[in-house]
Parts: sequence; structure tokens; C-alpha cells
Amino acid sequence: MDAIFSHRSIRVYREQPIESEKMSRMLEAATRASTTGNMQLYSIVVTTSPDLKKALAPAHFNQSMVTGAPAVVTFCADINRFSKWCRLRDAEPRYDNFAWFVNSAIDTLLAAQNFCLQAETEGLGICYLGTTTYNAQEIAAVLNLPKGVIPITTVTVGYPAQNPPLTDRLPIEAVVHYDTYKDYSEADINRLWKEKESLEFTKQLLKENNLDNLAKIFTQNRYKAEDNLFFSKKYFDALVEQGFFNQ
Amino acid sequence: MDAIFSHRSIRVYREQPIESEKMSRMLEAATRASTTGNMQLYSIVVTTSPDLKKALAPAHFNQSMVTGAPAVVTFCADINRFSKWCRLRDAEPRYDNFAWFVNSAIDTLLAAQNFCLQAETEGLGICYLGTTTYNAQEIAAVLNLPKGVIPITTVTVGYPAQNPPLTDRLPIEAVVHYDTYKDYSEADINRLWKEKESLEFTKQLLKENNLDNLAKIFTQNRYKAEDNLFFSKKYFDALVEQGFFNQ
Repeated sequence: MDAIFSHRSIRVYREQPIESEKMSRMLEAATRASTTGNMQLYSIVVTTSPDLKKALAPAHFNQSMVTGAPAVVTFCADINRFSKWCRLRDAEPRYDNFAWFVNSAIDTLLAAQNFCLQAETEGLGICYLGTTTYNAQEIAAVLNLPKGVIPITTVTVGYPAQNPPLTDRLPIEAVVHYDTYKDYSEADINRLWKEKESLEFTKQLLKENNLDNLAKIFTQNRYKAEDNLFFSKKYFDALVEQGFFNQ
Repeated sequence: MDAIFSHRSIRVYREQPIESEKMSRMLEAATRASTTGNMQLYSIVVTTSPDLKKALAPAHFNQSMVTGAPAVVTFCADINRFSKWCRLRDAEPRYDNFAWFVNSAIDTLLAAQNFCLQAETEGLGICYLGTTTYNAQEIAAVLNLPKGVIPITTVTVGYPAQNPPLTDRLPIEAVVHYDTYKDYSEADINRLWKEKESLEFTKQLLKENNLDNLAKIFTQNRYKAEDNLFFSKKYFDALVEQGFFNQ
């Protein structure tokens, strides 16, 4: 499938808006994904208002895609809608707990990926924003998310104004195990990372960051212990606050 | 994109095995999905051994797809491989916490959906098994998953021996919000569920279950409060046990 193999994250967009028929097909594509018990435990918030994109931007650390893309699409786990329906039918829902956070997050992400692949099939470009889980409560406030709804990921989408190369990946054998998981030896790790570590791109990164290996770019610069622990607690608190941890 | 719009879950498979070139393309498709910081925080365990499928079956409540499919593919969040690489490079990883459970689960599910859509493009059928999060520790034991690895979802895959109709969905407007979230009124809920509640299929279900509305089938039969709370605690314990909650 072309869209899968030619995917690259697009971070710069043309000003051209997205045709509403295309957006409709993308949204319909999202709803065709598998969902837990056909409960569709997600909501998709499509934000195109310049003011609201500006309001979302700080939560995404002001990455330029947020105000630069014609649409910012926030994919949320949602037990609110289903639970409301149950209550109106005199059925008592108990989906306000961790298992259903996971179930609804699964539903949400399968829908998000369908949306993205359909967008790419339509000639659009997308970028996933990992910042969504860093600042979920701030995003919830801007988007008026009620209890029972929590942002899982955000996708910026629009016509590409750049054409970056395919991103490198580890060899397939690095991530695939046959029958059971075979843990990695030191020799395995060295072999599997060899190509990535010797890329020109990696050498450039090391020079720019003044570090002696790629792993340290992750642990010392990009995703540091103190930040990880801070955002970990923050997202877990958001989860509790949004009503997904009534164990 | 055809595969997206023609998806139905396939639960009965022909005996024909999956050609290895097809499986390779499906696995490669998985690795082309977006991933947090290009860290590829997942592992894909492809189980084809009849004995191992039999060992996995009870964890999936002996659903017939598990032994009936030529391949059972368990998609796992994996911080083990990346952390091992860091340690071998004298970099201290701290990805053993909740934020990175969520990041790695996101990576895992985008990869899973790419795998499934490529499988369907190749003429195969798939079914997601929600039972994976019910019995994650039992699955981890069968698949030898070390600390830092936890199952998120499972897909059974093979050539279809059935051709079920498309599953009904709520109207698109039920799951989409423009600019910000608009919470649902009683009238909204009634309107959005109207079609689903009046399906012949729904009426049949009510008769079989001797219940007076569809919501009660969910709360009283399929996903009951006591089960939800039990499996919620169980999966959270698994998460802690597998090393994803060192806050």
C-alpha cells in the first residue's frame, strides 16, 4: 500500500485549505478501524480556527506545525459519550477505569492511523505530535474536554510544502521475534544499531550536540530522566483527573 | 484507500499458510509507521507454532481464531531494547515510567494498524483481540517477555474463510467535533444511536439476551462492572510488574 511505504512526517504546509470532501473521507476512514466491542471509544476534534490553533500551540511547545497547518486534529479517548448513552438507557456504565483507558486509547490510535493513511492517500501530509501527552490537561482546557475524555495524540495535516527523505529505521529483525521473544545480547544490539550509528545524519547530530554517541542524545538532550518523570506524573494525574482511574 | 473502507474482522481462516514475502511486507509496513523520536518502542512477536498458539489460547479465552489462524501476532510496547542500547553506550535511560508506557503503546498501535492494512492489501484477513490486556501477564509468560516489554494488542491473521458484512458504525458526526468538543445532550444521544438501536441485528441480540435495550447488553453481559474493575487492576499490576511505572 503506497501510503504506508511512502510515509514521511510533514512539518511545513502550504496555505491551501483541505477540501471538505477529502476531510470527510479521512474522518470516515478513521471510523472504519477496528474498535473494542464496536463501542467507538474516541472523539476526533478537528481544529481549524486560527485563534484556537494559537491557543493550542503552547501545549505543543510552540512547534510551528500547530499554527502552520490548516487543521490540527486531536484524537481523544472518550468514555463520556458511551457512558452517557448507557445512563440514558438505565444501564450503569463502569468504564471509568484503567482497563478502559487502555481500550479507548487503542480504539483512538487505530482510528488516528486510518485517518493519517487516508490523508496521505488524498495527497496530504501529516505529522504526529508526541507533545499531546505532555500537556494533556492544557489541551483539554482549550478544547473543552469534559470528564471521560483525554487527548492521546494530535495530528497536524495539510498540503505538503516540503519533501523530506524517508526516515531510517532499525533493520526489521530488530523489532520482530518469531514464536517467542528472544532477548538481545550485546552483540545483537551492536549489530542492529550499526547502520543507524554510522549514518552521516547521526555524525552531524553528534557534532551539533557535542556528544560522543547517539544514545546520549536521547538520554541527555531529547528525553531526559527528570523530564520523563515529570511528564509521566503529569499525564497520570491528567488520567485520574479525567476520570480514567476509578479502580 | 480500499483496505481501510473494506475492513471487516475475519475470525475464520483457511489452512493455507501466509507466504513469507507477504509477511515480510506486512512487517516492513509496520516499521514505516510514525514512532516517538524514531525510537521504535515496540516488538512484534509472530507466533506460528501450533503448540505455542495452543499455549496462548487460554489467555485469549480460547477464542477459536488463536489456534485457527496461521499466525498470531502479539504487538508489545518495548522499552527493553532501547534501554539496553543506551546502557551499552554509557547513557542512562529512564523510560521505565508511565509517560513511556503511553509513548511506546502509541508506537505499537500505529505499527499494528499498518501491519493490518498491509495484510488486507495482500488479500489476508485480520482480527484484533482485546483479550490481550485482560491477560497480559499470562501472555508475557508464554512469549518469554522480559521486563520492559508488555503486550498491548494481538492480531490473528490468515486467508479469510468467511466474508462478513461491514460492521455498522455511529454516524460520523457522533465522533467528530469541530474546533472544540461539544458535549452531548440527551437529544443528541438519542439521535446518534437511533439507527444502531433499530437495526434488525440489535433486535435479534436483545431477544437472545432477554434484555430490553442495547446498552444493557454492554453493562450487564459483555463488559460488566466487576469484570472491568478486575481486569483494570490486573493490567495495571502487569504494567507495574513489567517495569513501566517507576515514577
